[in-house]
Amino acid sequence: MNKKQLFEQIKSKKSFLCVGLDPVLENIPKHLLKYENPVLEFNKQIIDATKDLCVAYKPNTAFYESMGLKGWETLIKTWQYIPNDIFTIADAKRGDIGNTSAMYADAFFNEAKSEMSFDAITVAPYMGKDSVGPFLEYKDKWVILLALTSNAGHSDFQLHETPDGKLYEEVIRISSQWAGSEQLMYVVGATRGSEFENIRRLAPDNFLLVPGIGAQGGSLADVCNYGLNKECGLLVNSARAIIYASKGEDFAEKAREEAISVQKEMEQILLSAKLI
Amino acid sequence: MNKKQLFEQIKSKKSFLCVGLDPVLENIPKHLLKYENPVLEFNKQIIDATKDLCVAYKPNTAFYESMGLKGWETLIKTWQYIPNDIFTIADAKRGDIGNTSAMYADAFFNEAKSEMSFDAITVAPYMGKDSVGPFLEYKDKWVILLALTSNAGHSDFQLHETPDGKLYEEVIRISSQWAGSEQLMYVVGATRGSEFENIRRLAPDNFLLVPGIGAQGGSLADVCNYGLNKECGLLVNSARAIIYASKGEDFAEKAREEAISVQKEMEQILLSAKLI
Repeated sequence: MNKKQLFEQIKSKKSFLCVGLDPVLENIPKHLLKYENPVLEFNKQIIDATKDLCVAYKPNTAFYESMGLKGWETLIKTWQYIPNDIFTIADAKRGDIGNTSAMYADAFFNEAKSEMSFDAITVAPYMGKDSVGPFLEYKDKWVILLALTSNAGHSDFQLHETPDGKLYEEVIRISSQWAGSEQLMYVVGATRGSEFENIRRLAPDNFLLVPGIGAQGGSLADVCNYGLNKECGLLVNSARAIIYASKGEDFAEKAREEAISVQKEMEQILLSAKLI
Repeated sequence: MNKKQLFEQIKSKKSFLCVGLDPVLENIPKHLLKYENPVLEFNKQIIDATKDLCVAYKPNTAFYESMGLKGWETLIKTWQYIPNDIFTIADAKRGDIGNTSAMYADAFFNEAKSEMSFDAITVAPYMGKDSVGPFLEYKDKWVILLALTSNAGHSDFQLHETPDGKLYEEVIRISSQWAGSEQLMYVVGATRGSEFENIRRLAPDNFLLVPGIGAQGGSLADVCNYGLNKECGLLVNSARAIIYASKGEDFAEKAREEAISVQKEMEQILLSAKLI
């Protein structure tokens, strides 16, 4: 899905919500345990309940890998179940030397080899340009590079001063020479609302993937105040607040109610910004 | 395996060789294609041919993920095939917010959940302390943190000057507050021989995992000149130069010859340093 198509989806659904599909077996409703693959059934019901309200799904690969071989199979089947017109993000935070990143690109973009072909993958920037390049060679795919994350540890290195600015600013500035806003997004944590203005100066046209709404505590209004651009430019992720809105038999219904609530807030924001 | 046991293995085998198990289906000998799982058979024969000559095996997860579900199964079965007294490294370069890194720790350290329990995992430092912490909670396991990598892109961010030194120096300095040399190693590329003296000043007691010998072009003598410490302190990886020493029916025999050649060189180095 290209940038124009993504913006069309956002306008059509009046939503820039990304739902994080991060299931933990211990946390899913007990009545699903009767299924052969309870986690897959959970994901399917969450997708069915939210697919008209969100524009993206983002499975975090860690949650699937932690379940061993069955987990990897669940990741594949989850990707396969997501409707084609919804943007898919492998939240994998990969990155390695060039020939190895090419293998990760096969793993998440090359359906003939791996049975999965996400629209985008999250990538860690530490190893530099040749660790990111192989993903960009898939011209219809996206790299979402970690810039400023929402966790406490963001201050350990990302805020380090360098001669040309903080490290995360350097990540944005330097990586913007590797690809344009048609292929490159950045991860920017919602808990860093005050930094969004600065980030928009460095990356005016790029989409930003924003985790940290909901359980991680960021404010949607703050993020949008500084983060919206003329093509929306934001994908705001919510995982736990939606998928665990209830842990009972009504989990899908409650997930839908929570997603509606977020979508309505997003609709007002898009209207106020005259984007719809 | 703890640090003392690792050093005992090094002294016993007169080797600090780590063999990188990074198989690509297109590159493995044609006569193996008759097996139900040719890549697994390849790995098994490489392990059989080299297990008395190396102290560690390091499968890079990208190579397995690129083969889809069958690849993940091959990773599990490869780990299971490695003898218990050999150090195992999941070269996965993971790292995420705390609760997610805990899932990655389950994926690679918790056999009950994932059927794998490597001794160590490589981790990317960009997200800071709480992205590394969950791995360190497995007290008998190791984190191998990326410090200075061997690829061209290492200069994009790792060499950035900060008020307290280059970024990779800060990664070593700050992370050394998170764990001691009993649980923390660093990745240091062999192509950076001149930086080893500096790194040993910052991390005198830590083991360093050194990729880049062989196909990537580093010199073993240079690395050891600066990198050896009183417990050896080095694991030197070689992948392609060993596993693809021949692409014919004699691949295992040729891999063994190549591993013997490296082991003999290491034995001389250990003797000269009076470590054996």
